Amino acid sequence: LDADDQETVYNLVEPLHPADVADLFELIGPDYRVDLARAINDLLGSEVIAELNDYVRDDLVEDLDPDEVAELAGDMETDDAVALIQDLDEEDQQAVLAEMEPEDRAAIESALAYPEDSAGRMMSRDVIAVPEHLSVGDLIDFLREDQDLATEFWEVFIVDHKHHPVGTCALSWILRTPRSIALADVMKRDQTLIPVTMDQEEVALRFQKYALISAAVVDESGRLVGQITVDDVVHIIQEEASEDILRLSGAGDGDINEPIHLTVRTRLSWLVVNLGTAILASSVVGMFQGAIAKLALLAVLMPIVSGMGGNAGTQTLAVVVRALATNQLTSSNTIRMILREFRIALANGTTLGLMIGGGTALLFQNPLLGTVIGAAMVINNLVAGLAGILVPVTLDRLNVDPAVSSAVFVTTATDVMGFFSFLGLAVLSGLA
Amino acid sequence: LDADDQETVYNLVEPLHPADVADLFELIGPDYRVDLARAINDLLGSEVIAELNDYVRDDLVEDLDPDEVAELAGDMETDDAVALIQDLDEEDQQAVLAEMEPEDRAAIESALAYPEDSAGRMMSRDVIAVPEHLSVGDLIDFLREDQDLATEFWEVFIVDHKHHPVGTCALSWILRTPRSIALADVMKRDQTLIPVTMDQEEVALRFQKYALISAAVVDESGRLVGQITVDDVVHIIQEEASEDILRLSGAGDGDINEPIHLTVRTRLSWLVVNLGTAILASSVVGMFQGAIAKLALLAVLMPIVSGMGGNAGTQTLAVVVRALATNQLTSSNTIRMILREFRIALANGTTLGLMIGGGTALLFQNPLLGTVIGAAMVINNLVAGLAGILVPVTLDRLNVDPAVSSAVFVTTATDVMGFFSFLGLAVLSGLA
Repeated sequence: LDADDQETVYNLVEPLHPADVADLFELIGPDYRVDLARAINDLLGSEVIAELNDYVRDDLVEDLDPDEVAELAGDMETDDAVALIQDLDEEDQQAVLAEMEPEDRAAIESALAYPEDSAGRMMSRDVIAVPEHLSVGDLIDFLREDQDLATEFWEVFIVDHKHHPVGTCALSWILRTPRSIALADVMKRDQTLIPVTMDQEEVALRFQKYALISAAVVDESGRLVGQITVDDVVHIIQEEASEDILRLSGAGDGDINEPIHLTVRTRLSWLVVNLGTAILASSVVGMFQGAIAKLALLAVLMPIVSGMGGNAGTQTLAVVVRALATNQLTSSNTIRMILREFRIALANGTTLGLMIGGGTALLFQNPLLGTVIGAAMVINNLVAGLAGILVPVTLDRLNVDPAVSSAVFVTTATDVMGFFSFLGLAVLSGLA
Repeated sequence: LDADDQETVYNLVEPLHPADVADLFELIGPDYRVDLARAINDLLGSEVIAELNDYVRDDLVEDLDPDEVAELAGDMETDDAVALIQDLDEEDQQAVLAEMEPEDRAAIESALAYPEDSAGRMMSRDVIAVPEHLSVGDLIDFLREDQDLATEFWEVFIVDHKHHPVGTCALSWILRTPRSIALADVMKRDQTLIPVTMDQEEVALRFQKYALISAAVVDESGRLVGQITVDDVVHIIQEEASEDILRLSGAGDGDINEPIHLTVRTRLSWLVVNLGTAILASSVVGMFQGAIAKLALLAVLMPIVSGMGGNAGTQTLAVVVRALATNQLTSSNTIRMILREFRIALANGTTLGLMIGGGTALLFQNPLLGTVIGAAMVINNLVAGLAGILVPVTLDRLNVDPAVSSAVFVTTATDVMGFFSFLGLAVLSGLA
């Protein structure tokens, strides 16, 4: 394929779905992307661009002139065009917008006026809104006449004279209802309205909870301004869930197409923070250098206590972060969850303490050492379980994303308390 | 609310959406659930039951007679009824099925015949399938007449005489097309077909990639047997993404409604495996007891090297596990990704090595110790980066879920190599 045979490449790519072409761009290395773009020229349409990973897209779009970008954006749905343009720098944004049709430009500019990651950025302005007094037949005639409508829609929104949504009608009901019936008699009055400033994560949770296909977006005064459809939400659900795992581990947004120097910077800043906490934990060990010099076996065993605490803390943390993200853990059941984690930590700590304590006592013929490590294990498991829930819950109350910063606090707690409880008990008990 | 005032409770719950009633059941403690169920009696319909968390549902359903369960299941869509019945034990399943209408029973039995987590279990059998030769008008008349059809659908599937799907038609196109046009002229011939045995994770990825609202499910001979709609897929995307974070940390399915003894068992078995690897790592330290007895400072510093390796390995692991799960990392770009992680590890390891090495040399006035810990840090970061990608990629090739078992191998590698490189270099360099 790299052998300059553009026609073969073109013929191979032609039958593919735009989403598959986009995948192809991501899978081949950055060095081949420009060649591929050249080979398939007219197949690289707005649909492919819309499906591309942000970084790959920026790379490709960088070489285009503003009027070419404007043309691509003009062919896209508003939300995809917004995604394309919002990543450009201020100057390029202006240049591209200047080249666009006035109508498209107005739509994109008003979307960009909403906060990033809000419903206003995601929504499509193409929405079917009709007055209450229409009959099913009127509506069908209206839809057949108006050729400028959005090509795909799943629901019709019924609005009052102030353009406030009063009901919604799935297309399947319209198809199955005789023409003479009034829309007011088939529509569903209960509907989930999305405020235009709502965060996309919250939008995704609503869609999921109420099994929505599309939903009306309303502005501050309650006017219908657009709709969000589930296909755009699906990406967000996936992204938000992935985000938690990546943030917990300090891997940034974990995008494998990100330029390597950005990845290094993100991961390194997390590792440097962790270096600080590792030094803190090691200074606890430093307090007990005398004891370790007397009994080097303590240094052999101490990583077991701290490491197991870290593992137990991570378990609790993962569960709590997901439960917070999916609104399953709220102020009404926090106390119950804390007690639950405490009981789990007690059960696990006791079991592990007996295992490691018994093993140590037998192996080194030293019951006192076994007791010390067993007790430290119980203590550190309790610290892990409590830190694992209290840290993320507290951060969440303070409106800090618990996935971003919890892990540092929890592993610091388990490292410090692991070393301190084990070495401290060893000294107290007169072992060393 | 607990004060026995059933009427007040009823009135409070009545206006809620079934999904909100289900949430209420999950948020209140297990002790109050039966009381709540009693208070709201007829509001606890099949829609609420379908939305309940598995464990909470099992709890409530346990007290019901088979004929009551059968009645609930009869009111549900096939996929929800399957979810309800598949969790019962064999004997109860039979009892409930025996009480059901023959038609519903047949549908559920055939769904249960497909493997768990397959498309066959998720699909709904209610699907609109019409022959090619119909016109748009014929179709609308057919839909208006037949009252037994699924109440909500988004697409009509067009089939040939063998009941093989040949095209699909979004309802919005049907509504906008004059009655006289043949379906064959408006339908889209390219469609994504879901084989009935496809795993639900793969189904979710297809929906996401091609932005589907619904898709036809076909059996081995290519016959249309059902459809899957996006609202059922949304839950799976969420679950599968959450699963990875929970499995990586060994927290099982992380369901906060799971009975506590099951949670303890899941988490404990993971911790016991990790205890094994912790003991292995500590035995490496044991090999260097002599050196530690001479220079206890080694024991103070060694957790920094192993811990930082663990952090770096977890970052790579999180990125790789998500990239594998979303089909972004395939055999075609594995080598490129390994080189990418190697370069990141080298950059991060060198930076961290210089920081901790320089700091140690200055603080303890010991340039040799600084060099040793700096070199060990570089080595362990490389081990972390390579293990972080090689372990999950290898497991994935062996068809083992990389999220389940990778973390053990990676942290074992970083612990063992962290201790070994630091203490080994210390001895080799004559430090102790």
